[in-house]
Amino acid sequence: MERFSSISMAVVRRLPKYHRYLGDLLNNDVRRVSSQELSKITGFTASQIRQDLNCFGGFGQQGYGYNVDELYNEIGKILGLDRLYRTIIMGAGNVGRAIANYTFFDKSGFKVIGIFDSNPQVVGNSIKDMTVMPFSSVESFVQENPVDIGVICTPREQSQSVAEALVRCGVKAIWNFAPTDLKVPDSVIVENVHLSESLFTISYLLKEHEELEKKKK
Amino acid sequence: MERFSSISMAVVRRLPKYHRYLGDLLNNDVRRVSSQELSKITGFTASQIRQDLNCFGGFGQQGYGYNVDELYNEIGKILGLDRLYRTIIMGAGNVGRAIANYTFFDKSGFKVIGIFDSNPQVVGNSIKDMTVMPFSSVESFVQENPVDIGVICTPREQSQSVAEALVRCGVKAIWNFAPTDLKVPDSVIVENVHLSESLFTISYLLKEHEELEKKKK
Repeated sequence: MERFSSISMAVVRRLPKYHRYLGDLLNNDVRRVSSQELSKITGFTASQIRQDLNCFGGFGQQGYGYNVDELYNEIGKILGLDRLYRTIIMGAGNVGRAIANYTFFDKSGFKVIGIFDSNPQVVGNSIKDMTVMPFSSVESFVQENPVDIGVICTPREQSQSVAEALVRCGVKAIWNFAPTDLKVPDSVIVENVHLSESLFTISYLLKEHEELEKKKK
Repeated sequence: MERFSSISMAVVRRLPKYHRYLGDLLNNDVRRVSSQELSKITGFTASQIRQDLNCFGGFGQQGYGYNVDELYNEIGKILGLDRLYRTIIMGAGNVGRAIANYTFFDKSGFKVIGIFDSNPQVVGNSIKDMTVMPFSSVESFVQENPVDIGVICTPREQSQSVAEALVRCGVKAIWNFAPTDLKVPDSVIVENVHLSESLFTISYLLKEHEELEKKKK
């Protein structure tokens, strides 16, 4: 993903955390915050925070700290949260339905405008006021309804061909929940959520933790 | 998480990928593989792969490469996939239901033994042959049914108190889907799946991509 970003992806991945914590402060009517205070809340060091925010032009004022409202809005803009993203979901199984129903995304400007599936028994069903359409209709749908993000929630076996269909339609970004590494042109943004890898990290750590406990005895 | 692992978390997070690719090779009846071939498939460099696998004792033989079956099983053992993990799901909303129905986890040894929710209208419903229980019964449930992993799928507001209940019950690992950073004792493993942060990374990259395109014109 590094190829897309002029600043380090590590910084990019911290921005949503800043945004979330600043939103909390706003909700609690906190108007200004120092990098030291932000450090306590976020767990990042104060110098890390100052460095991160300096990547986008400095927002803070020495002796004053940051204006919470301003910083929240600026980070929102940097994250591209000041516009609407038209999204389609490929695969209306458990994960696809969960994503479709996740209201938080709606509120943040990610609007699901279509859901597709390959299973004739699922096509035609309703999910959140939308009728599930067949995979075969995705290209004509996207021609009439521009799409920013395609979410792949299919089984692994279908994911590559679905990704290729999305790329043919001109979809620029893929949020991939299938446990596989998609092969797409370099110009297409792919963000993976590999749940099994996340879960296997837990099993690894649990196992190591138990072995350590045994050794202690 | 680093505190739990004697080897770097970066290596740990690559292991599930090796495991997945080796499983593919096995399914295609490939019996042996060189680090160069693994490099082509995984996208990691051959020397990275050799280094990673050497962390756990060398598995390959010079001039022969790796025995796929053996390496697959060994990595499975390292990941702790040779045993059963009893799992409970806290929060029977969209995400909780999706996780409960995700058969892959079952097959990998992660068995959901209980689902809990705070909403009286949800408690008593059936999900995958299980009756949703109230949050208030989780402590007595865990006393009778030892639990390895608690999956938090509640709204953000409930997530901290649910995490604290799990810790009181002695649950050693938390898979957290709530968009928040839980405060738990150092001895408890927490693995976060922060979907909104993943999605905001896409919006950031899309925005940057579009700005670049505009500059080109």
